Amino acid sequence: MMMRRDRLLLAVTLTAIFAADLYFVLVPKLRHRQPGPADGGCLCPSSRGTNFTLAGYSGLTTPWFSNTTSVDLQGKGVGATDDSTDWGSKLGRLFAHPLYNIQTPELGLEERLMQSEELMEYYRRKVSRWERHMKLYSKAAAALNVTMLEHQVTFDPEASWLKFHLGINRYALYARDNPAITRLLQDMQATTVISADYTQDEKALKGACDCTQVVKPSGHHLKLALKMQNFGKAMFKPMRQQRDQETPDDVFYFVDFQRHNAEIAAFHLDRILDFRRVPPVVGRLVNVTGEILLTTHNEDLRSVFFTSPANNTCFFAKCLYVCKTEYAVCGNPDLLEGSMSAYLPGLSIAPRISIPNPWIRSYTFTGREEWEVNPFYCDTIKQLYPYNSGNRLLNIIDMAIFDFLIGNMDRHHYEIFTKFGDEGFLLHFDNAKGFGKHSHDEMSILAPLSQCCIIKHSTLLRLQLLSQDHYRLSDVMRESLGGDALQPVLAEPHLQALDRRLHRVLKTVHRCFRRLGEAQVITTDFIDTSTMPESVKPVAMPNKER
Amino acid sequence: MMMRRDRLLLAVTLTAIFAADLYFVLVPKLRHRQPGPADGGCLCPSSRGTNFTLAGYSGLTTPWFSNTTSVDLQGKGVGATDDSTDWGSKLGRLFAHPLYNIQTPELGLEERLMQSEELMEYYRRKVSRWERHMKLYSKAAAALNVTMLEHQVTFDPEASWLKFHLGINRYALYARDNPAITRLLQDMQATTVISADYTQDEKALKGACDCTQVVKPSGHHLKLALKMQNFGKAMFKPMRQQRDQETPDDVFYFVDFQRHNAEIAAFHLDRILDFRRVPPVVGRLVNVTGEILLTTHNEDLRSVFFTSPANNTCFFAKCLYVCKTEYAVCGNPDLLEGSMSAYLPGLSIAPRISIPNPWIRSYTFTGREEWEVNPFYCDTIKQLYPYNSGNRLLNIIDMAIFDFLIGNMDRHHYEIFTKFGDEGFLLHFDNAKGFGKHSHDEMSILAPLSQCCIIKHSTLLRLQLLSQDHYRLSDVMRESLGGDALQPVLAEPHLQALDRRLHRVLKTVHRCFRRLGEAQVITTDFIDTSTMPESVKPVAMPNKER
Repeated sequence: MMMRRDRLLLAVTLTAIFAADLYFVLVPKLRHRQPGPADGGCLCPSSRGTNFTLAGYSGLTTPWFSNTTSVDLQGKGVGATDDSTDWGSKLGRLFAHPLYNIQTPELGLEERLMQSEELMEYYRRKVSRWERHMKLYSKAAAALNVTMLEHQVTFDPEASWLKFHLGINRYALYARDNPAITRLLQDMQATTVISADYTQDEKALKGACDCTQVVKPSGHHLKLALKMQNFGKAMFKPMRQQRDQETPDDVFYFVDFQRHNAEIAAFHLDRILDFRRVPPVVGRLVNVTGEILLTTHNEDLRSVFFTSPANNTCFFAKCLYVCKTEYAVCGNPDLLEGSMSAYLPGLSIAPRISIPNPWIRSYTFTGREEWEVNPFYCDTIKQLYPYNSGNRLLNIIDMAIFDFLIGNMDRHHYEIFTKFGDEGFLLHFDNAKGFGKHSHDEMSILAPLSQCCIIKHSTLLRLQLLSQDHYRLSDVMRESLGGDALQPVLAEPHLQALDRRLHRVLKTVHRCFRRLGEAQVITTDFIDTSTMPESVKPVAMPNKER
Repeated sequence: MMMRRDRLLLAVTLTAIFAADLYFVLVPKLRHRQPGPADGGCLCPSSRGTNFTLAGYSGLTTPWFSNTTSVDLQGKGVGATDDSTDWGSKLGRLFAHPLYNIQTPELGLEERLMQSEELMEYYRRKVSRWERHMKLYSKAAAALNVTMLEHQVTFDPEASWLKFHLGINRYALYARDNPAITRLLQDMQATTVISADYTQDEKALKGACDCTQVVKPSGHHLKLALKMQNFGKAMFKPMRQQRDQETPDDVFYFVDFQRHNAEIAAFHLDRILDFRRVPPVVGRLVNVTGEILLTTHNEDLRSVFFTSPANNTCFFAKCLYVCKTEYAVCGNPDLLEGSMSAYLPGLSIAPRISIPNPWIRSYTFTGREEWEVNPFYCDTIKQLYPYNSGNRLLNIIDMAIFDFLIGNMDRHHYEIFTKFGDEGFLLHFDNAKGFGKHSHDEMSILAPLSQCCIIKHSTLLRLQLLSQDHYRLSDVMRESLGGDALQPVLAEPHLQALDRRLHRVLKTVHRCFRRLGEAQVITTDFIDTSTMPESVKPVAMPNKER
């Protein structure tokens, strides 16, 4: 009897200790190790690249509902969408919400960026020029004894990149339910690369390396334009930094690395915010030998390749010759991860203008711009064209919110399509400087919002939705990024930072409410119909009227 | 009674668990955290800099015994040294060993690098030139409104750097028992800095930044010459890399960072190997504002200072303007750690020659030098002057062993004092590329030893001694480095690597024994008396005769 008691006591003690260990040590460790999607989807790095299926992208094709007008921020009953939605998926739930299912009016010709015939003609010309070029180049390469891979090109009128270009309209770069976007991401992730080259702005520099002239050569010079077999084109930015590394505090934003994972994550965030102003981006493991060195026709590019002491194939920034191998990126031994961003239609057929951001930074060690010292800066801006009418200023504020969430201080310019005039949306290009520091929220990025104290009603409603547990921004981002070949795309602290920053955006809006009243701050998304072609007129969206 | 038993059982169980926790968790953790000296000396980082006492350097002043001729590798009984030696200190034991107490013959005038009168005259001229310069400069600075700190200079005939320069002789840079060396280390660690400037070779570059011309601008350009109040001069190399970071495998040795801690550790290792061919080096926390920015008279140097986004004072490499702040180093907010290496006497009074290392590397991505492809390379070298006679080749092999131990692949040139002619020792300058990777032993650095298969008898005996548990190299290094202000100077894996590499050196020697026989391999340290002045003749050291 006594023995039994002893045993019981011992058993109880050990069980208690075991339970405590389980609770305080093991569980937190496991939690820490698996920052994966809430549904327990596999995050194993071994699934990267080779056998990648785009299951995670199924969320991209939620239907484009047509009869929803009421906004239900509780997200409880959304009528017609109930049946088709996976309620275990926060992302599915988000995209099924009425706020995300506001119908765009029937699009007139002038509201689409590209006409089908024009684009096809352009495509055909490109292919035949390529074929002529290849005939000459193959001979030259054989004569010079240059090893190169030759791939057949295909003329495919159904190519995903064509569909993407054709889908661009005056409201956004793509519709969320456009299946061509899913295909485009798959293509950029897996299709054969037939040639590689420096990008146009790289070529414009002509290898210039005078640091007093070029603001930031360091990050730029490693990005490349890759052409796919079906003639789709993507900008490749190689990995420069580990996901768990933070940008050191002493580094200025304008010399910070470009991060391939920031480029990928920014696309997903933009889509989740329903802006759809970032061209599609996907992660890819690129074979630097087979897909760059052996496909490029650019002698300069070929000349920057070398084999590292560890026998990996590497290449370095063009203008920083030999001694600058610190800037090199290396495959392992050939495979290098990076981001692939879909190209927009060429400037010759779809011109864009680049406009300095009114809240530009000084890009010097000590300089300060007016907005940093003048709290009434926005009053001046509001008087100036094109910020004095239309929704340009509201779009700038959308962009500031987006940049604040990703922590991007490097938005010196923004671009718009010439065709859509001053009322067109702003392209959120080049987001690779984002996600550098998760532990710091750079409040100055929010200056347009905090100084102007206006925000689009539709934007505010979506931000409020994403701040709810039911949809939480970090959770939908984790789920969305879980489908990428390079998952986990973001380290967990960066996802957590999104929630914290979202909260700070909403706090900033509430401070504006207290200062000026809601009516002054929340602004109906406004389109000046007088400057638009006839077909564009019925544009005010249902939820934007208050 | 039953209660008591239960309590006892509970107490025993808890005690057992606590003991297990203590043994398996706490102790390893503490061990891991405190890789400090075996004698339990304080390793707290807070002791760095301000209240630093040179207790750890007491080992520097072991007596210079005069009557020891027999070599006792077991290190058990060493007669006269027994009483004065701290047997708890492996370093004390090592320096008390007869091998480390071989008397140098009385030095003739020609065997000393400097004559006292000549050096004093040089010193006086320097001081008066400085005073003239300061009068003019102070006026100019006041006119230009440049803030600067002015310090009094002192003329001190007993200055430690003077004593160091006077002690340099044809056998070594210093005697281990010279108390001036301990003072010199203390001075470099704590004396007021009165001016800072670029180094001479930096100035020779004139900010040149053409990477095809300059092999390795990246590391070089941040080193500075600092002048002390007593006119001693030291080369400051700032910290560029954390102690636990390893150089990535893809980085070529010639673009690797310079490491301040490698510079410090190399001085200690050289002293432990009893070469004494590295000028004294010590760690220091330098105030980059007070001791560099506000003391320099060089406008170029002042212009590269800036305040980082984290409000730290930083400066960057001269030739890599603005955009190259990646290369900057920053104080915190002003204090920056670095190495201080004592300057040798100026070239005008003690000229040196720089000679290419016969085992130089190619400094290109793909090039190979002859020694890398020709296994009989040493036979060629042995025919060539000055390697065909005297002990130059043996000195090269000493240097190769030293470089292999620290993992330095960057020994493109070596220097000798002109005065001592071809028989002078080789200076082991510029060791900051060492200690980059602890996990890799670069066997090619040992090529001079493995290809020539000769080694000085005295060197081999010391290496054998250091491979014994009784003296173990890593232990004496840890103890020696424990006295530096920036301790721990080396991360523990680097110390462990020293033992492993020492073992590989000895294995290489034994392979030579098997190939050629001991008699062929072990070489009496030879000095060709015919080329030396009369006073130098009685030079063969007792232990070097077999």
